[in-house]
Amino acid sequence: MVTVYRGTVLHTKSFDEFEVFDHGFIAVDNNGKIIGLGKNYASWLKQYHIPAEDLSEVRLNDYQFIMPGLVDCHIHAPQYAQLGLGLDMPLLDWLNTYTFPLEAKFSNRNYAEHVYRGVVESTIRCGTTLASYFATNHLDSTLILAEEALRQGQRALIGKVCSNCNSPDYYVEKTSDSISSTELFVKAVRELKSPLILPTITPRFALSCTKDLLTRLGSMAKRLDVHIQSHISENLAEIDAVKGIFKTGYAAVYDNASLLTKKTVLAHGVHLEDAEIALIKERGTAIAHCPASNTMLSSGICDVQRLINAGVTVGLGTDCAGGNSVSIQNAMLRTLEVSKHLEFFNKQHISGSAIISQPNPLYKPLKYTEALYLATLGGAKALALDHVTGNFVEGKEFDALLIDVSIGEKPNRTYNATELLEKFIFSGDDRNVRVVFVAGKIIKGYQK
Amino acid sequence: MVTVYRGTVLHTKSFDEFEVFDHGFIAVDNNGKIIGLGKNYASWLKQYHIPAEDLSEVRLNDYQFIMPGLVDCHIHAPQYAQLGLGLDMPLLDWLNTYTFPLEAKFSNRNYAEHVYRGVVESTIRCGTTLASYFATNHLDSTLILAEEALRQGQRALIGKVCSNCNSPDYYVEKTSDSISSTELFVKAVRELKSPLILPTITPRFALSCTKDLLTRLGSMAKRLDVHIQSHISENLAEIDAVKGIFKTGYAAVYDNASLLTKKTVLAHGVHLEDAEIALIKERGTAIAHCPASNTMLSSGICDVQRLINAGVTVGLGTDCAGGNSVSIQNAMLRTLEVSKHLEFFNKQHISGSAIISQPNPLYKPLKYTEALYLATLGGAKALALDHVTGNFVEGKEFDALLIDVSIGEKPNRTYNATELLEKFIFSGDDRNVRVVFVAGKIIKGYQK
Ligand SMILES: [Zn+2]
Ligand SMILES: [Zn+2]
Repeated sequence: MVTVYRGTVLHTKSFDEFEVFDHGFIAVDNNGKIIGLGKNYASWLKQYHIPAEDLSEVRLNDYQFIMPGLVDCHIHAPQYAQLGLGLDMPLLDWLNTYTFPLEAKFSNRNYAEHVYRGVVESTIRCGTTLASYFATNHLDSTLILAEEALRQGQRALIGKVCSNCNSPDYYVEKTSDSISSTELFVKAVRELKSPLILPTITPRFALSCTKDLLTRLGSMAKRLDVHIQSHISENLAEIDAVKGIFKTGYAAVYDNASLLTKKTVLAHGVHLEDAEIALIKERGTAIAHCPASNTMLSSGICDVQRLINAGVTVGLGTDCAGGNSVSIQNAMLRTLEVSKHLEFFNKQHISGSAIISQPNPLYKPLKYTEALYLATLGGAKALALDHVTGNFVEGKEFDALLIDVSIGEKPNRTYNATELLEKFIFSGDDRNVRVVFVAGKIIKGYQK
Repeated sequence: MVTVYRGTVLHTKSFDEFEVFDHGFIAVDNNGKIIGLGKNYASWLKQYHIPAEDLSEVRLNDYQFIMPGLVDCHIHAPQYAQLGLGLDMPLLDWLNTYTFPLEAKFSNRNYAEHVYRGVVESTIRCGTTLASYFATNHLDSTLILAEEALRQGQRALIGKVCSNCNSPDYYVEKTSDSISSTELFVKAVRELKSPLILPTITPRFALSCTKDLLTRLGSMAKRLDVHIQSHISENLAEIDAVKGIFKTGYAAVYDNASLLTKKTVLAHGVHLEDAEIALIKERGTAIAHCPASNTMLSSGICDVQRLINAGVTVGLGTDCAGGNSVSIQNAMLRTLEVSKHLEFFNKQHISGSAIISQPNPLYKPLKYTEALYLATLGGAKALALDHVTGNFVEGKEFDALLIDVSIGEKPNRTYNATELLEKFIFSGDDRNVRVVFVAGKIIKGYQK
C-alpha cells in the first residue's frame, strides 16, 4: 500500500533553502519510506503505475499541512519530573539543589517507568519524532527509557549518563562501573534490534568526569562506533571550573579524549571561543542550541549565526528541565526571540542599560524558515541521522507531522502555505500537532 | 450564600510583597465580594456566624490553587484575526502591510462579531479577568466588542480607536467624526449600565493623531472623567518620526494635550528618556509592558526595573497581535526572559557580539513573584481599578482563577505552594486555568 498525502507540504533542504508545495503531495510506501514529493501528482502517478487498490489518498484541509517531524537534540528524560520548577538559580547551584537529588531517584525502576512513560508521551504529543535523551547513571532504568521509546514508536538516541567525580556522594560512579555499564548498555540497546533506538555514549559534562573516564569513553565510542553526547560552554562559572581542573580550553578537554567526532552532539556552546568553534567544525561535531535553558539558568545567549557562519552544524534542544518546555515548536520560537534580542544589542542602545561599544549593524536575526531548518534537518544532521530523517528527500523515512492550525480557533479566512507555518511556529502548541508519523507509522493522532 | 475555597491561595500585596496561604481559605459573599482570606478558617468562621445552610465549601486538591485573575493592560481585539502572522517586519511597516488593512474590515458588523467573540473567548480561556482593549476606528463594531465582553462576563475597558492623519486613505477619520463618535461611544457604554464594562479614550498613537485631535480628546477625558489608553516610545523609527512632527519629546506630546492622567495607561515605553519617566511618574500615568510584541516587532527591550525604581506603575500587556499570544501567563514568562537577557547584557560579554562598555553588575532580573504582581495587582493599578480588583484584599471583587497544574501531567509527588505557582508560570498554559471568576461569577470552567 502506498499512502499519498495531498495538500500543503513543506520542508527545508538546507539552512537557507525552504521548499513549499502548496497544492502538493507526498507519497509514502509500505515500509514508511518517502517515494514521491512535489507539485505534480498526476505525472508522478503516471510514472509509478500504482494499482488503484494499492493506493490510499489522504486529503488535507485548508488549515492543515505536512512538515518533517521535530528533532530534539538534547533532553534530560528524568528531569521531566521537575519541568518548570527551580528555575531561579544558575547551573551549578541548580544541579546540586534540584537535579542530582532527582536523578538519584532513578535507581528505583517504578519511579523511572512512571517518569519515562510521561516524557516520551509528552514529547510525542509536541511532535518530537527523534530525540537524543540523557537518562541517569543507572543502567537498569536507562534501559527502561530505551524500551519505552521503542514501545511508543519514537526514534531515539538514549544515553546512560557517566559521572565519576565532582558529584554528590549519593550520585556518582566508580570509573570501572561507569565504563562497564556503558558497554553493557550499548549492547543491550543493540539487542533490541530496532532501527529506531540507538545508544549514545554520554559523559555528563567535563566537570563530572575525570580525564581517564573521558578517554576510555572516547575509545569505546570509536571501538563500538557509537554516537556521543555531552555539554559544552554553558555557563561562565562552569567554564572557569573546567579550565581550572583540566588546564586547557573546554573543547580541548573533549578533543584530547577523542570525544569530538562526526557523531557527537554537544549542548549549548554559549560561550565558545573562536578557536574552539574552528576545532568543533574541523571534527564534524555539532551543537544543540537550547535557548530556553540558556535563559532560564542564566547561562547566556548563544549566537547561532556565529556557529552557522563558521560551518558548524546546529540543531535545537529543549534541555528539559533547564529548559521549561519539552516542545521543539517552543524552542523554534525562543530561538527566534533570542536572535532578535542579539540584534537589539548589536544595533540599539538599550535605555537604562549598558552602552554597546562595538555594535554590529550587519547582524541579521534568524528567519522562521531557518528556525524550521534547525528544528528538523539541522537536528537530524546534528545527530548524524540525516541520511534517514530530517526532510522529505525520496528514500528517507517518513518522519512527519500533520499540523492543523484551526484547532482552538475559528479562522475567518484561509491562509497561504507560509502563513500556515507562521501560525504554527508563532502561536501554535501541541494541540495543533494532529498526527505524528515515525517511519510512516502513526504514533499520535489518527488518519481520516 | 457564602462560598469558601479551601486550599492554597496566593496573591501579591505590592511589587515585592508576595503572600501565600498553603492551607488557607478565601471567602466570597453573594455579591462576589471577598469577605475573608487567610490561614485560620475556623476562627474566621466563628467570628462571622454564617448559618450552615448559607455556606458552601469548595476544597481544592493538592495540585490546585486560587490566584487573582490576570490583567491584560494592552490588547488589540481586532488583531486577534492575525495572531501569529506577519511578525517578520518592524512596527511601521507591519502597521501598513498587515494591520491597517485588517482593521479596516471592521466596518463590517458580521466580521467584527466573529472576531470579537473569538478574542474574548480566548482571553477568558487564558485567565484574563480584566482587559483593556483597543478596537478600531468604527463606532458600531467597537460597541459590539463592549457587548461581547459583557455577554461573556469579562471585566473590560473598551476603546474606539482615534486616528485622523498619517494613516491610509481607507482607514482614517475626520477630526470632528473622531471626536463625536468617541463621545457617542462613551455614552453608549455607560448606558450598558454594567460595572464590568468601562469606556476608555483611545488615541491610537501620536503619529496617527493631530495635535488638535489629541487636545480635544484630552479635554473630553477630563470632562467625562474617562480612562485613556495609547502607545508610547515603542520603536526608534517611530520616536524619530514623532519628534520630527511635534518638535518635542514623545511624553510631552501627550502631556501637552492633558492626556497623561492617573487613569492613563501607555503601552511599551521601551525607549523612554529619564525626564519622560519622571514626567509619567509625576502625572500618575502607567506603562503596559508588552515583552512579546517588543521582541516580535523588533522594537527593543524594556527595562521594567528602571520604570519600577522610578516609581512608575507597570502592568503587562499581550499587545495581540504584535505579540504572538493572548495569554498573560505567557507574558509573565516573557517578562522574566527579557529581564534575564538584560541581565546578561549588563554582566556578561556575549561571545561574537558587541562588548558592553558600561556593565551594571548590580542589575537583578525580575523574580517570578514580581511577574505575578505585574500580571495582577500591577495591571489593576495601571488601569486605575485596583480599588476593585487585582488581589484578595477584603472588600474587593472576587476576580480569580482556579489553577490546576496536574492537567496533562501525572505528577509523581505533591508540590508546595510556590512550586504550584512556578509550574503555572514556567510550564503552564490555558489548560491549567480550570475556573475563571469575575465578581464571583464563573465565566470559564465549573465548580466541583
Ligand atoms: Zn543538558
Ligand atoms: Zn499596541
